[in-house]
Amino acid sequence: MKLEHYPHHPWKIIEEGWNPDNVEASESIFSLGNGAMGQRANFEEHYSGPTFQGSYVGGVYYPDKTKVGWWKNGYPEYFAKVLNAPNWIGIDLKINGVVFDLNTVKAVKAYRRELDMQNGLYTRAFTAELENGLELSLESQRFLSLARPELGVIQYSITANQEVNVEISPYVDAGISNQDSNWDDQFWAIDAVEAQAAQAYIEAQTLKTAFSVGTFMASSLFEAQEALALEGAAFQTDKKAGTTYQHQLAAGKTLSLLKLGGYVSSRKHEKTALKAAAQTVLDDAKNLSFSALLAEQNEAWAAVWKSADITIEGDVKAQQAIRFNIFQLNQTYTGEDAGLNIGPKGFTGEKYGGSTYWDTEAYCIPFYMATKNQKVARNLLTYRYLQLDRAIENAGKLGFTKGAALYPMVTMNGEECHNEWEITFEEIHRNSAIAFAIFNYTRYTGDLSYISEMGLEVLIGISRFWAQRASFSAAKNQYVILGVTGPNEYENNVNNNWYTNYSAQWCLRYTAEQIEQLRSTAPEEAARIEAKTNFSEAELEQWNKTAEQMYLPEDAALGVVLQQDGFLDKEMVKVADLDPKERPINQHWSWDRILRSPYIKQADVLQGMYFFEDQFDLDTLERNFDFYEPFTVHESSLSPCVHAIMASKLNKNEQAYAFYLRTSRLDLDDYNAEVEEGLHITSMAGTWMSIVEGFAGMRVIDGQLSFEPNLPEAWEGLSFKINFRDTIYTLQLTQGRFCCTVDNEADCSVVVRGEKHRFTGSIELSV
Amino acid sequence: MKLEHYPHHPWKIIEEGWNPDNVEASESIFSLGNGAMGQRANFEEHYSGPTFQGSYVGGVYYPDKTKVGWWKNGYPEYFAKVLNAPNWIGIDLKINGVVFDLNTVKAVKAYRRELDMQNGLYTRAFTAELENGLELSLESQRFLSLARPELGVIQYSITANQEVNVEISPYVDAGISNQDSNWDDQFWAIDAVEAQAAQAYIEAQTLKTAFSVGTFMASSLFEAQEALALEGAAFQTDKKAGTTYQHQLAAGKTLSLLKLGGYVSSRKHEKTALKAAAQTVLDDAKNLSFSALLAEQNEAWAAVWKSADITIEGDVKAQQAIRFNIFQLNQTYTGEDAGLNIGPKGFTGEKYGGSTYWDTEAYCIPFYMATKNQKVARNLLTYRYLQLDRAIENAGKLGFTKGAALYPMVTMNGEECHNEWEITFEEIHRNSAIAFAIFNYTRYTGDLSYISEMGLEVLIGISRFWAQRASFSAAKNQYVILGVTGPNEYENNVNNNWYTNYSAQWCLRYTAEQIEQLRSTAPEEAARIEAKTNFSEAELEQWNKTAEQMYLPEDAALGVVLQQDGFLDKEMVKVADLDPKERPINQHWSWDRILRSPYIKQADVLQGMYFFEDQFDLDTLERNFDFYEPFTVHESSLSPCVHAIMASKLNKNEQAYAFYLRTSRLDLDDYNAEVEEGLHITSMAGTWMSIVEGFAGMRVIDGQLSFEPNLPEAWEGLSFKINFRDTIYTLQLTQGRFCCTVDNEADCSVVVRGEKHRFTGSIELSV
Repeated sequence: MKLEHYPHHPWKIIEEGWNPDNVEASESIFSLGNGAMGQRANFEEHYSGPTFQGSYVGGVYYPDKTKVGWWKNGYPEYFAKVLNAPNWIGIDLKINGVVFDLNTVKAVKAYRRELDMQNGLYTRAFTAELENGLELSLESQRFLSLARPELGVIQYSITANQEVNVEISPYVDAGISNQDSNWDDQFWAIDAVEAQAAQAYIEAQTLKTAFSVGTFMASSLFEAQEALALEGAAFQTDKKAGTTYQHQLAAGKTLSLLKLGGYVSSRKHEKTALKAAAQTVLDDAKNLSFSALLAEQNEAWAAVWKSADITIEGDVKAQQAIRFNIFQLNQTYTGEDAGLNIGPKGFTGEKYGGSTYWDTEAYCIPFYMATKNQKVARNLLTYRYLQLDRAIENAGKLGFTKGAALYPMVTMNGEECHNEWEITFEEIHRNSAIAFAIFNYTRYTGDLSYISEMGLEVLIGISRFWAQRASFSAAKNQYVILGVTGPNEYENNVNNNWYTNYSAQWCLRYTAEQIEQLRSTAPEEAARIEAKTNFSEAELEQWNKTAEQMYLPEDAALGVVLQQDGFLDKEMVKVADLDPKERPINQHWSWDRILRSPYIKQADVLQGMYFFEDQFDLDTLERNFDFYEPFTVHESSLSPCVHAIMASKLNKNEQAYAFYLRTSRLDLDDYNAEVEEGLHITSMAGTWMSIVEGFAGMRVIDGQLSFEPNLPEAWEGLSFKINFRDTIYTLQLTQGRFCCTVDNEADCSVVVRGEKHRFTGSIELSV
Repeated sequence: MKLEHYPHHPWKIIEEGWNPDNVEASESIFSLGNGAMGQRANFEEHYSGPTFQGSYVGGVYYPDKTKVGWWKNGYPEYFAKVLNAPNWIGIDLKINGVVFDLNTVKAVKAYRRELDMQNGLYTRAFTAELENGLELSLESQRFLSLARPELGVIQYSITANQEVNVEISPYVDAGISNQDSNWDDQFWAIDAVEAQAAQAYIEAQTLKTAFSVGTFMASSLFEAQEALALEGAAFQTDKKAGTTYQHQLAAGKTLSLLKLGGYVSSRKHEKTALKAAAQTVLDDAKNLSFSALLAEQNEAWAAVWKSADITIEGDVKAQQAIRFNIFQLNQTYTGEDAGLNIGPKGFTGEKYGGSTYWDTEAYCIPFYMATKNQKVARNLLTYRYLQLDRAIENAGKLGFTKGAALYPMVTMNGEECHNEWEITFEEIHRNSAIAFAIFNYTRYTGDLSYISEMGLEVLIGISRFWAQRASFSAAKNQYVILGVTGPNEYENNVNNNWYTNYSAQWCLRYTAEQIEQLRSTAPEEAARIEAKTNFSEAELEQWNKTAEQMYLPEDAALGVVLQQDGFLDKEMVKVADLDPKERPINQHWSWDRILRSPYIKQADVLQGMYFFEDQFDLDTLERNFDFYEPFTVHESSLSPCVHAIMASKLNKNEQAYAFYLRTSRLDLDDYNAEVEEGLHITSMAGTWMSIVEGFAGMRVIDGQLSFEPNLPEAWEGLSFKINFRDTIYTLQLTQGRFCCTVDNEADCSVVVRGEKHRFTGSIELSV
């Protein structure tokens, strides 16, 4: 795909012109989701060209048997992965008896896709030239209802320049496969296939995990917006069911099919009641027109944008990008279900198994916390609390004891899925991100109740892990953490990764503080948790001692911390001095060459300095930024955002803006040449952070919202909303001006450039 | 299998008593081989119990598609592996119309297997109780002819206590599979299946590699040693062909089937001439009786033992063990084919793909060099020379240039097969072992011609690799080698593994010396090689500089070298203090726990001190041995021998003897509980080294054989033969006495305990 394939527009993603080579990329870009289900922008009608079919039901996964070359003790037996679910969008179309297929028509004109991010409506339209001068115009409009999470809606309209016979067959189909299957296993068993007049239903169950999913549809036909009293013929095979309509369509008239469909799953309903649940969804919607359903959709999305929108004046490219990111994050996760989480590709592809990574804690929680509400953020924390037992089991498999918890690198249900020893067993810093998220949530919301209700148990499990995982070096007379992989996955099995050691030290101290604090503020609660976790005073002493004596590698001469022991033994050639033909290095170099190089995949030391920024003075931050960034290749989508935020803080404005563009338009401009596999959902939250924490310099300090605005030169204005402790703050920044408005009449205060300002309603300042 | 399942006997391996649980282990222990082919001790007749079928043709392999969980740049696409070849030993047997099957008979009595190591004759005998008081006695004798490398011989004899109808059907069968197959691919395509009267032939071709193999047989029947004029009926299916004989056998009479069979392959014959070649093998042998063929076999093995036998007086357990090791090494490799090498499991199983490892250079060459002759050792060196181009290609795939050669970790044809990054890309010390073998060969044989004819090109390729792989550390102001795995595979991706750095330094210096020497002794040869390899003076300078400034980690306070940077940061708990229930750690601990422990799988620092012993004083050797051995878990079969040799040198006699027993009886006593997978062939050469270099303290110093005898207390005497520069030395050591006899009348000398003794014929000394 070419860079800048999709023209800039503040609210829309548009594709114009037919190019079969771009079908799979656009299937990703125009993906729809409503938190409960997702759908790649596959064509409804048959398409014989290359396509990547994807329909996904949130939380429904399959444990695929692990595939490795060489087994290592401790590897998980399964890799839980997202499932391509039965297809509900399909519409077979025959014109004058011939199957319609965009891949084989004589010509395609006026081909256009459009995604309206204001309401999540996706439209595809084109005119196809068939034999004998016949031209067929088709418009398909589709959305997944935010108001009705089990419902999707398609309006599929056909117009021809000659009278034609139209055979149109909406269907549901369980004859699908997963591209990402280790052993070409079947993932689904089909339990029922049923068709009647204008409805069809398939019930299928995932093998092993036994999730039952009902895929359903109902259809009706209209001509010139009048309902047609046309009897469809039900049909079914062992995997597919639907309705076939025959209609003689006059030249210039428009035939429209309204198809309602979607999924009901056993995650939400009794298995025996699935079919009835599907019928209820259809019955509730069937008397509503497409317009009426769309009106609900408009309203639901308007509510999302109300607290989440960001406007950028003077830079439509940046504007489109940030809206695309916010839109996708809201398509992926709505925050109502503590059993769901945010997969790196959301509902837009199969890669990375649709599973949960530390991305959620490090990148996504700040976004959902500020643009939705405290409850949504709490649900994301609760997800990990509910999986604490599994994290303890996981640590047990690696030899840890007494309630030590190691959260998985990749998971669906709390069990570890991943199977590269250098990641699975060694990328243990993920534990710290989970503790940090608890701290970050508390800092932002002021809600201390989570600590005593759930958080402290998680923190104790994590700190027990660190206390066991750190070992005492007699040679150094300090505690060391050997054999780890840091956030920079271009180093494996290193000793004393600074980020890991520092964050472990922080976890131990933070947990100890929380225990002490709870003992003084709610002694009964503290006693309950200590009893439940068999906590002993000796542990507290050991934690304090381990934290106190934690070894943190540094180089005094350079005035920087060291990414790991021995980092300075490498050949320190900066990224700028590499041959551009050799980049990205992960596509050009053998793995060992990458490992012994100084190149950094994503923020590592700087990830720590970002998390724990308040513990370092500005000079230290700058020395470390200036030392490490030049060795960073940013070959993870999670890299540029952290650098954008730090660059903003350090007044490196051009750099900050360059990082922002790279992170925000990663998928739209397909920097990594892989967008056809799906979108980089979790890094989109990093884009939001780049603006809010970067250019607006927002922090929460001592319970106060604080700002250090630093707008990119190109931007005339930036505005965004923040839900901070149940008040919606609207921030409007222009070059030199700061304006903040709240949605209530209470006394408020903000800190701007270190100075506290009290106000009611609104405040405007020069900055 | 129980330890000490096989009773002690100086020349035989014996199993007595029927136990189906032991079938697969004994199939390994009683394996036969003649260098050209191998055969596990599978039963000839049908057996429905658990069995691991294995028939192997030397040098015939299949490139199985690589299986990995996560692909890394640089991984090879294929893993070449040994193939289970069509079966030539099979004999179907029906008694009174019922298939005979040891797994289903009423009882088995007097079951006995015996392997006579003096002549490689394997005998299996038993009496089986069938229905109605019928007892059937069966004796099968089998050998693979050392004199006729394409021929195997079976005499299969049946006696019953009642008159019985015997239907006996010798066959060849290509309906076989490989247990070790990544994707359950077919490995063979069958080209021809033919049966006629008493002969059968199958021609099959390996897929991808297109080796053609003809599997053939001929049979004849005898009663009471008289040939029976019995017409067999030829039969064939699409995969199997043979001859069926019907015979009414009187009570107490013995029916014997003589089956000749084996393989001809396209490695030795034109494909179109394969069938004719098979016929020639049969025609040459068919007029010889079993006894006559066995007489040849006796003679051929006598010649092997003449220069390879070791006798140990007073310790039958040790005696049996060393003969088993010598026997297996000679079954595996006869030294006549520079295209063959020594797989870690020889012809006894599939694991490790039957491929070549650095085991050959580090462990096997000394054995073959001393017990066979210079030509055999040279063939093993030539094997690598012939693969130099592939080693250069292999280095190229990892980003090295200008003729740098990285020999593969695992190979059949010179291409790398293995696919664990920490091994494939990082266990690069294998390059040094290949250079060391050239040095060792030259030191032992005095043959300098190999250097100029082949060796120097190999050395230049290897040194070019080291010069590029070492990088300059500005921090240390020295050359470092980052990101390696040493011989101790319980450490991965470490920096500055002492063994790797030291051996790289040695390679660079040794290559430079050889160039300088050749320039002065044979300037034309030197010029030819320099031109062929595009060698430049600047390289020589770089090599000298890199060697000069090579960083070698050490701890001055402890007076030891460091296995790698940071080794002393580990929790230094000795192996003796581990809970025995947790051993072997590779079966009880997760991989990350092993990696961050101090435990050593096999000699690492000590491997270097063994290779380069003369460069260290005795105190240094002892300090390092005393420091590292207590952290060594010896979980590689290659570990104990090096420690036995060093312990002998350091007068730690009890330790040396304990190591010897562990290495020599590894398979017979099944220390690793895995003998059913095959035997540990390459470590058997280490056993021989333990005796010759360990207890006899043999070295070659300045072209002189030198000895430092140090017999285990339990041993009354030790004698062995050495072919040193075309003289056979017979060494006879008893406690306090040293006797050496040579097989010619030339003036000889040996150094004993540092003192040189000249003699003719024989010398006896007190020691």
